[in-house]
Amino acid sequence: MKSISGARLGILGGGQLGRMLIQSAIDFNLYTKVLDPDPEAPCKDLASSFHTGSLTDYQTVVDFGQDVDVITIEIENVNCDALEELQRQGKRVYPTPESIRTIQDKGAQKDFYKANGIPTSEYVLLEKGDEVAAHTDLLPAFLKLRREGYDGRGVQKIETLKDAEDAFDKPCVLERKADIAQEIAVICARRPSGQVVAFPAVELFFNPEHHLVDYLFCPSSVSEALQQQAEDIALQVTAGLDVLGLLAVEMFVTTDGKVLVNEVAPRPHNSGHATVRANHTSQYEQHLRAIFDLPLGSTAIKIPSVMVNLLGEAGFSGPARYEGLNEVMATEGVYIHLYGKLLTRPFRKMGHVTVIDTDLAAAREKAKFVQHTLKVKA
Amino acid sequence: MKSISGARLGILGGGQLGRMLIQSAIDFNLYTKVLDPDPEAPCKDLASSFHTGSLTDYQTVVDFGQDVDVITIEIENVNCDALEELQRQGKRVYPTPESIRTIQDKGAQKDFYKANGIPTSEYVLLEKGDEVAAHTDLLPAFLKLRREGYDGRGVQKIETLKDAEDAFDKPCVLERKADIAQEIAVICARRPSGQVVAFPAVELFFNPEHHLVDYLFCPSSVSEALQQQAEDIALQVTAGLDVLGLLAVEMFVTTDGKVLVNEVAPRPHNSGHATVRANHTSQYEQHLRAIFDLPLGSTAIKIPSVMVNLLGEAGFSGPARYEGLNEVMATEGVYIHLYGKLLTRPFRKMGHVTVIDTDLAAAREKAKFVQHTLKVKA
Repeated sequence: MKSISGARLGILGGGQLGRMLIQSAIDFNLYTKVLDPDPEAPCKDLASSFHTGSLTDYQTVVDFGQDVDVITIEIENVNCDALEELQRQGKRVYPTPESIRTIQDKGAQKDFYKANGIPTSEYVLLEKGDEVAAHTDLLPAFLKLRREGYDGRGVQKIETLKDAEDAFDKPCVLERKADIAQEIAVICARRPSGQVVAFPAVELFFNPEHHLVDYLFCPSSVSEALQQQAEDIALQVTAGLDVLGLLAVEMFVTTDGKVLVNEVAPRPHNSGHATVRANHTSQYEQHLRAIFDLPLGSTAIKIPSVMVNLLGEAGFSGPARYEGLNEVMATEGVYIHLYGKLLTRPFRKMGHVTVIDTDLAAAREKAKFVQHTLKVKA
Repeated sequence: MKSISGARLGILGGGQLGRMLIQSAIDFNLYTKVLDPDPEAPCKDLASSFHTGSLTDYQTVVDFGQDVDVITIEIENVNCDALEELQRQGKRVYPTPESIRTIQDKGAQKDFYKANGIPTSEYVLLEKGDEVAAHTDLLPAFLKLRREGYDGRGVQKIETLKDAEDAFDKPCVLERKADIAQEIAVICARRPSGQVVAFPAVELFFNPEHHLVDYLFCPSSVSEALQQQAEDIALQVTAGLDVLGLLAVEMFVTTDGKVLVNEVAPRPHNSGHATVRANHTSQYEQHLRAIFDLPLGSTAIKIPSVMVNLLGEAGFSGPARYEGLNEVMATEGVYIHLYGKLLTRPFRKMGHVTVIDTDLAAAREKAKFVQHTLKVKA
């Protein structure tokens, strides 16, 4: 393979993950070509060339890939047939279409875990949600669409059979609700030559009132033994799915001390944002090293960190306006990352804030301040 | 002032410093407009809009600045009359044209140090190099062109009067050669509201054989007391010159334990590259915070670092080819930053490498390995 400098990288998806991938690609002098259906996508002004088009349309994706050296994704919902055709044509497609295909289907994901002895919560595959009635032994449970669920969409909580009345009318996974003590994520990277490494686990902190993720922090509070177990599992999943590039593995630590795989994403991940400022190597650089088959970087922590998603404030839609930027930036160790989205809407991911501090507890306090102070309104 | 998000930043100069400034500007969702005489400048594909034109032509610079909110520089050799006109029109120009004007002229710089009691080596201003004969008491000395010297160009070493035979035929500074124990640089940042901070000193390591800078490292080996003195001096120069944005202050520590200011640059600086990976705030983000009058970030060190300039190998000119990338990237803590310059030529700055390690001595060893291994050829 020729040098990474000047190589042409095709990226399917032009959102914030693509944006941060491009920021890192600049260090390697990569040419970046981006495809996204939204002409106003966050990458539009940053990519070396930006193209508007459907990621799920076969011909669009095949055509897009003609003049690049390596093709990667920043969102899983892409046309895998097209990626397979590009692979046949000799393009390097990482992650491979085969691994994306398995991951696109939550049912296939679950079957993979089961077949490979990877701990995951008990489940059954349903053709339609109304089949829940035959599996009341799994309740309370979550009903998840097998395809195209994203950011919490496509999930129904089924406590009792009554909740299944409006159940999805499509193929689903019915999954027993785990007794969760903690939620963590481990991001792994794997390169074609075989090297595979894991980042230290990141822990999700949920607001005790409304049960939404408040912030993520690293290092996690999980015991070293469980952390090692989580890392081993994540590495096993990465190799088992034959992922090349990054794989983010979201896991539950149960109240009885087990680690269960929840779901995975074969790309840079929300839980890895803080690596840019807090780890030796960022997840974005690691992804580039992996897909260009270069030596993977150290994942060691430079400094403890907390990451807060900056979501569009409820009740506001329209051109985004940021309130409190000055106040939060006046706090030592607070760093702003805006995604360049023109329009805000309730809960839209508009940016994130990374807080670093040699003292994790202090960083968590600062993160709370950031959450109360920084608002995206219209 | 309106929010930084979406603001329009004009940058005079499209080289590697502009490139890394843009990488940081992405985090704030800035629109970046760049002017450079070279249509192939490193910023050409990264700026939101890139314009080819002279930085020293009055009308070109005035026209360029019409539709931006803030104007800054990444090289000092710009038309200050044009910047003053833009300032008159109500544009925010940081650094101010007045401070750039003083810094552009090494003679005015020296007079400023003298007038403000800032320690600097003894000197005299000459209309032409042949006046050296009247100042043999200052020898051995350096003869520096007052204007447009850059990266070691425009400097002559005058040991004896014989060396003055081919002396510059233009206005110069004749400067007594200091007995240098160490060379350091301190980068300061100052914002319109008045806040001013300094980064920890970076030390230059010279190859004992050929006396060229081999690498820079941080923290420096200079005593804490001298480091504090250097920082105080750098802050004093920054305020005294009324610099807004960054000021890199290069200093000598003499064999008899004095700190002398060598020269300054009012912009991101080569000696600050490692801040991207090694300090809480990078020099690029700090410059943006300063010129948009936002709270300045912590300059604390996250991890010790060494920075190696990646120069075009002697004897090679033409399309650049990078040798040894794989080997150096396989070394833990080694990070590559390429500037996207198509053509290499002897000693051209083609990129840099940052080495981070909790043990500075180990980082210095790795830096030596990088220097022996990574080559830019044609």
